[in-house]
Amino acid sequence: MSDTIKYLLSEEQMPKDWYNLAADLPVPLPAVLHPGTLQPVGPDDLAPLFPMALIGQEVSTERYIEIPEPVRQVFRQWRPSPLHRARRLEEALGTPAKIYYKYEGVSPAGSHKPNTAIPQAWYNQQAGIRKLTTETGAGQWGTSLSFAGALFGIEVQVFQVRVSYNQKPYRRAVMETYGATCVASPSELTQSGRAILAQRPDHPGSLGIAISEAVELAAQRDDTKYALGSVLNHVLLHQTIIGQEAIAQLAMAGDDPDVVVGCTGGGSNFAGIAFPFIGLQLRGGRRRRIVAVEPAACPSLTRGKYAYDFGDTAHLTPLTKMHTLGSTFTPPGFHAGGLRYHGMAPMVSHCKELGLIEAVAYHQKACFEAGVTFARAEGIVPAPEANHAVKGAIEEALRCKREGKSEVILFNLCGHGHFDMAAYSDYFSGKLVDQDYDEAELAMALSGLPSVPA
Amino acid sequence: MSDTIKYLLSEEQMPKDWYNLAADLPVPLPAVLHPGTLQPVGPDDLAPLFPMALIGQEVSTERYIEIPEPVRQVFRQWRPSPLHRARRLEEALGTPAKIYYKYEGVSPAGSHKPNTAIPQAWYNQQAGIRKLTTETGAGQWGTSLSFAGALFGIEVQVFQVRVSYNQKPYRRAVMETYGATCVASPSELTQSGRAILAQRPDHPGSLGIAISEAVELAAQRDDTKYALGSVLNHVLLHQTIIGQEAIAQLAMAGDDPDVVVGCTGGGSNFAGIAFPFIGLQLRGGRRRRIVAVEPAACPSLTRGKYAYDFGDTAHLTPLTKMHTLGSTFTPPGFHAGGLRYHGMAPMVSHCKELGLIEAVAYHQKACFEAGVTFARAEGIVPAPEANHAVKGAIEEALRCKREGKSEVILFNLCGHGHFDMAAYSDYFSGKLVDQDYDEAELAMALSGLPSVPA
Repeated sequence: MSDTIKYLLSEEQMPKDWYNLAADLPVPLPAVLHPGTLQPVGPDDLAPLFPMALIGQEVSTERYIEIPEPVRQVFRQWRPSPLHRARRLEEALGTPAKIYYKYEGVSPAGSHKPNTAIPQAWYNQQAGIRKLTTETGAGQWGTSLSFAGALFGIEVQVFQVRVSYNQKPYRRAVMETYGATCVASPSELTQSGRAILAQRPDHPGSLGIAISEAVELAAQRDDTKYALGSVLNHVLLHQTIIGQEAIAQLAMAGDDPDVVVGCTGGGSNFAGIAFPFIGLQLRGGRRRRIVAVEPAACPSLTRGKYAYDFGDTAHLTPLTKMHTLGSTFTPPGFHAGGLRYHGMAPMVSHCKELGLIEAVAYHQKACFEAGVTFARAEGIVPAPEANHAVKGAIEEALRCKREGKSEVILFNLCGHGHFDMAAYSDYFSGKLVDQDYDEAELAMALSGLPSVPA
Repeated sequence: MSDTIKYLLSEEQMPKDWYNLAADLPVPLPAVLHPGTLQPVGPDDLAPLFPMALIGQEVSTERYIEIPEPVRQVFRQWRPSPLHRARRLEEALGTPAKIYYKYEGVSPAGSHKPNTAIPQAWYNQQAGIRKLTTETGAGQWGTSLSFAGALFGIEVQVFQVRVSYNQKPYRRAVMETYGATCVASPSELTQSGRAILAQRPDHPGSLGIAISEAVELAAQRDDTKYALGSVLNHVLLHQTIIGQEAIAQLAMAGDDPDVVVGCTGGGSNFAGIAFPFIGLQLRGGRRRRIVAVEPAACPSLTRGKYAYDFGDTAHLTPLTKMHTLGSTFTPPGFHAGGLRYHGMAPMVSHCKELGLIEAVAYHQKACFEAGVTFARAEGIVPAPEANHAVKGAIEEALRCKREGKSEVILFNLCGHGHFDMAAYSDYFSGKLVDQDYDEAELAMALSGLPSVPA
């Protein structure tokens, strides 16, 4: 069937385990440090925030970790997700390359985020937790945790970055439809929120601030924990179901990717598609190019420093070694809110340092242009975050055209843009502009990195 | 597998033919009349608006009509669509009934509408047509035709009912993303639009007016045709792929529905799920209850008159016999814009007259309440239109609970509500109220029905 455009696995072919890259890394991940003692944190340090099962996954070096059956049962509503051959996009570009995309927008929440929201909610339910707090930027993560909370009877309190809260009232409506509560951050609900509002009542918020608020609230009560949608090892672990499915689906198609592309904010969807392929290589497989695409306005991998830093603005989190723009860095208010994070997942950063991945940065207008090209060819309107991956894949396809190469390109289309059409409106009306970060602010944020002896 | 929640057909199992209910009707459908002569219209009368292939389908009495391979190729991106067992909803309701839903929101446009948009665009492309005009209310249809136009290189001009155009700027952004042009109706682009604006510059518009505008524009040029998203026989025909797939999927599940539920505006998604089951019965199968659910504020099937009427407000269309509230009837501006049509598909109306289907009407608050119950159990946020089907299915399930019956209920979840979250916001904030139509206006609209001798 030369014209096949969709590769589906049966429910029985859905991976039964998550793949843990830590098992195959040639150099172990640098330790997570307690910000006071600068000593490696232990499970007890994390226990106020996470149930022990997730802490175990955070530090595990087992290669495969079983996906609990109740989690798989929920996944089966939409997983295995489809792999598509983008034949119409190939034709539109006139490229000899084959372009495949793994489509995670088929989840009820519209993105890859339920891949970790569901297990996180389930492990918390098993630990007797009644409430979860979290932050959200554009809203993909808050939506997904709200969905997961509804399924497992867990109350969900979302702190949404104020600028997104105001720009996207419909996102809040989705979270409320799932029964969650969503407030604008900085908020009056927490000490860290009140402190910021006292200084600047109209503060637009940031992911770093929202994390501080959610962490603060969770640490106060035994029946309440915190859930993070990216960055942490166990979150990246949960996303590896994407890449594992993609490997099986490309085998169905009789193809093997030369280039694997994902967008990076905190790093979870990128890790989801990339880590299983990196694992193949580390276990003796062939070398593939693995390309992380990030926003030029918040370029942690391409312009950040690889150093120990806090995950949040109020410095309530442990220190992790990662590519960071500094925890006080506030990126411009561009439309891919899910990529507006000052840091990068330590595991993704580590891969970059080890030369296992490449990184490239694009401005948002070029990414929306790529997204529109994709939508007109393939019918799916990508999320602004996903447009970065689309742009990365199209650039690779055009390179193949110039070089006359028929390479196989795989990218992760991590979510649809149905809740982000205001950004497309702005794009069409010419209101969407490329924003650059402030070089002086970046320098100041980097100068404030915590001092950690080597 | 007692816990199966998803039934998928392979691409090879996708129906190769549409099912034409006209072949099995015990009484033929009343003729479509020319409004001037009151004589049955012939193909030539329709030729300015539709390509001959679609006119042929409109009047065909062949039982099966082949789905062209290029159309099937596009469908294969998301079809066969999944059938889900709503186990979590059953549990939430505590019903002994089994509830299944066919989910059409998996299409790139988010609803069942591409099932007819794709073939309509393809047949027009084959006939050398370069531009299609159409109307849209909430935007599901305009979005779908825009998508189809992008795939087949056909320019699409959408007239969107002004009240929806203003309430839902993001819908327009979706259509523009696909490359279509969308204007508010009534518009200055047509004579019928200008005439209405001259009388009332702030006219909120209606589907009837938007149809007039689209028809007027299409009739003026040889390379331009008109596409309708519901009501007509060929449109309903294209939707029968839904019910045919559902029959095969329920066979996989080992179940046979006792009740089939769909929401009705123009009638196409209802016909899609219902007609193949009605066909089984007419060819000697068992009798099932087939329930059409309509909005109480625009109740053509339950409160309209079965009579010849125009399909549009400016009376440019032929006369069809249908349940109608009168072509001048303007329904209240409730949120399920796709159900705000004065008439009903003639074929659905005919089935109602023959006693093959039932109809019931609900107010919108009860429908949104049902939609939220569904979203919290199943994760999918339904479109406001689809909430009527959800409400109908939940009422049947609660009846089964009262009667202690384990009936099998199937309903069509025709689309997701991602572009309709403003309505959910209004629901949660208490702003969404039940609106009734004006009895005096209905009486006046019905008194103006064209006089057609029996």
